[in-house]
Amino acid sequence: MKKIKIISMLLMVLSIQSLVAQGQEKAYFSKTVEGTFEEIAEKVTEYLIEQGFGIVTEIDLDVRIKNKIGDTDMKPYKILGPCNAELAYEAYKVEENIGFILPCRVIVKDLGNNKVEILMENPTEKLIVRDNIELNKIADQVKTKYLSVLKSL
Amino acid sequence: MKKIKIISMLLMVLSIQSLVAQGQEKAYFSKTVEGTFEEIAEKVTEYLIEQGFGIVTEIDLDVRIKNKIGDTDMKPYKILGPCNAELAYEAYKVEENIGFILPCRVIVKDLGNNKVEILMENPTEKLIVRDNIELNKIADQVKTKYLSVLKSL
Repeated sequence: MKKIKIISMLLMVLSIQSLVAQGQEKAYFSKTVEGTFEEIAEKVTEYLIEQGFGIVTEIDLDVRIKNKIGDTDMKPYKILGPCNAELAYEAYKVEENIGFILPCRVIVKDLGNNKVEILMENPTEKLIVRDNIELNKIADQVKTKYLSVLKSL
Repeated sequence: MKKIKIISMLLMVLSIQSLVAQGQEKAYFSKTVEGTFEEIAEKVTEYLIEQGFGIVTEIDLDVRIKNKIGDTDMKPYKILGPCNAELAYEAYKVEENIGFILPCRVIVKDLGNNKVEILMENPTEKLIVRDNIELNKIADQVKTKYLSVLKSL
């Protein structure tokens, strides 16, 4: 019985720790700024390149959906894939399946009324990264660059 | 003291439940097949298109890294982004930030010795989907299509 008590106390501590850990970091960072969708999307791209990323993918989700299923009420919505080759290679050497989180996504979303929201995935919070100290260090560099972009906007 | 015991017992049950839940579904599906990288990558693309996806992004990670930092020992490594416009729009109407998981990634990885591994993210296991019944139904359709592709290979 004493053993069970100790085990259940330990599990309680672990549960609380895991709750605290979950609360520590956001899954993504975001910022809403004033301007037209086109001008903000251009700025985000420019600042990402300044931070050493290449934009390896770019999806205009609203256009793609419109082309496939006709007119919708969807506002301009861009998904950018910024990738830093050096950091991607460092990450690949640690974890071969890193492709599952490459490139981390950046969303540029038209909110209307001259307001645009930018959302960036937090790379340190991806499941594959979370419990890997080496990957965490690499992801942290991406995070710092992302936060610099948001700050510049 | 009795209360603490009950709480810690409850937490123990919850911990075990969460472990079981984590084990229910895989984060990704994979299959290793024989063939050259080029021929398998072509087949994966073809079967994805047959299942109603458009390939909206395609990254040759090894080539990109080679172009940026010079020769490496990295084998051919492709990250495909298949997107079904109808399902993407359904998902967008439920969750505006769905762009964080669009498109779900498919990795085609050369293992050498005429062996190629295909890995596909399980869309029903993404955090944004997991606790949302409506999104889960949509993601489940993507999952079924992905599994059909793997089966065909």
